[in-house]
Amino acid sequence: MHRTKVRVVEDVLDANDTIARANRDDFDRARVTVVNLMSAPGAGKTRLLERALDGLAERGVRAGVLEGDVQGSYDADRLSLLHLPVAQLNTDNGFGGECHLDANMVRSALGSLPLGDIDLLVVENVGNLVCPAEFRIGEDARIMVCSVTEGEDKPLKYPLMFRACELVLVNKIDLLAHLEFDADRLLANLDAVHPGVDRMLVSARTGEGVDAFRDWLAGLPDRTRSEAAV
Amino acid sequence: MHRTKVRVVEDVLDANDTIARANRDDFDRARVTVVNLMSAPGAGKTRLLERALDGLAERGVRAGVLEGDVQGSYDADRLSLLHLPVAQLNTDNGFGGECHLDANMVRSALGSLPLGDIDLLVVENVGNLVCPAEFRIGEDARIMVCSVTEGEDKPLKYPLMFRACELVLVNKIDLLAHLEFDADRLLANLDAVHPGVDRMLVSARTGEGVDAFRDWLAGLPDRTRSEAAV
Repeated sequence: MHRTKVRVVEDVLDANDTIARANRDDFDRARVTVVNLMSAPGAGKTRLLERALDGLAERGVRAGVLEGDVQGSYDADRLSLLHLPVAQLNTDNGFGGECHLDANMVRSALGSLPLGDIDLLVVENVGNLVCPAEFRIGEDARIMVCSVTEGEDKPLKYPLMFRACELVLVNKIDLLAHLEFDADRLLANLDAVHPGVDRMLVSARTGEGVDAFRDWLAGLPDRTRSEAAV
Repeated sequence: MHRTKVRVVEDVLDANDTIARANRDDFDRARVTVVNLMSAPGAGKTRLLERALDGLAERGVRAGVLEGDVQGSYDADRLSLLHLPVAQLNTDNGFGGECHLDANMVRSALGSLPLGDIDLLVVENVGNLVCPAEFRIGEDARIMVCSVTEGEDKPLKYPLMFRACELVLVNKIDLLAHLEFDADRLLANLDAVHPGVDRMLVSARTGEGVDAFRDWLAGLPDRTRSEAAV
């Protein structure tokens, strides 16, 4: 029974990878760089985007957002105030909803995004530290947000998520003074599962560290293209 | 294709319910009341248990814990300091791990728990606000923990989770003074998806509200038996 299950999971992930490659081809043709943004629920993904995407146009990067949620369009409504193209993708289908985006869901939303008018697409995944890391969607880079209120042990408990990403944002550092949180211990746990991965300490609330994150995003299309040209 | 998928999901949930009923029969025979404890990653489930289970034996309730994690035994190690029976269940199987416990996983762990020596079993689920709510494990009651650092919108974004439980613990209220968090708005959102559900404001860190939670747990075996006798 276990072997059957493994084969089914492999088939699902193989099928997903095939569609992810098709997404990637479409993104490449449109010259759109794609970020898959992941975190636990409530880690501050949307608020970070509100801060970091504002001002990106002045840097010559036209951004768009694809919002993934089980239900509702609360985050998309917030981000549409930035006057960026925002599309909503809901994963509910009568069973409580899927806990992650997959390549096919993203593919179904491509028609609602003006790919020809943007340089950078940020896909905000469903809040979850497990399954989103298993499903590629055709992205160039994966970013995860963990907040200091979640505790220092999360890289050890959800290692695939922390291993899967190119950048880790440690959010809510404005609360550090009010917590018994050892940032060095978090970073040591991070290095234990993903040695040397890029990391930034940020506060979406105060804006601390957000300039560096905006710089990272602004430079991503050029970095991606120069890697592709090698 | 959508119809096929729906049927597969229904079959999976039907099979799960059958095993959950078998678990339930075993728990009933052993006169063990079972709680399924759920939350997002880092909401404070383990720390709440450290506080609330300590002192339960003096109330005449012998508790045990089944710890569900993708990987590792960090929480089980913490809870074993309480000198309670603690068993670890890991969901990793080479694909990054399952994002929830199901009835079969719990069934596989029953042999490692001294059911004859406990009155209350708390099953700490994998941190996730989606799939754990879809899989019954044979429990009498479901409790979810949300923390004030996650924002007021979570009941609207993850409605099945908030609807599935008999008690909602709003944790980390010691941080309220340092957040722009509107507790009334959270509770209104909670009532929008699960009107009138039991709720308690707690702080696992300071202990505020934990006595009321311990009372709720201590009374659960009697409440469960009197309901079963009706």
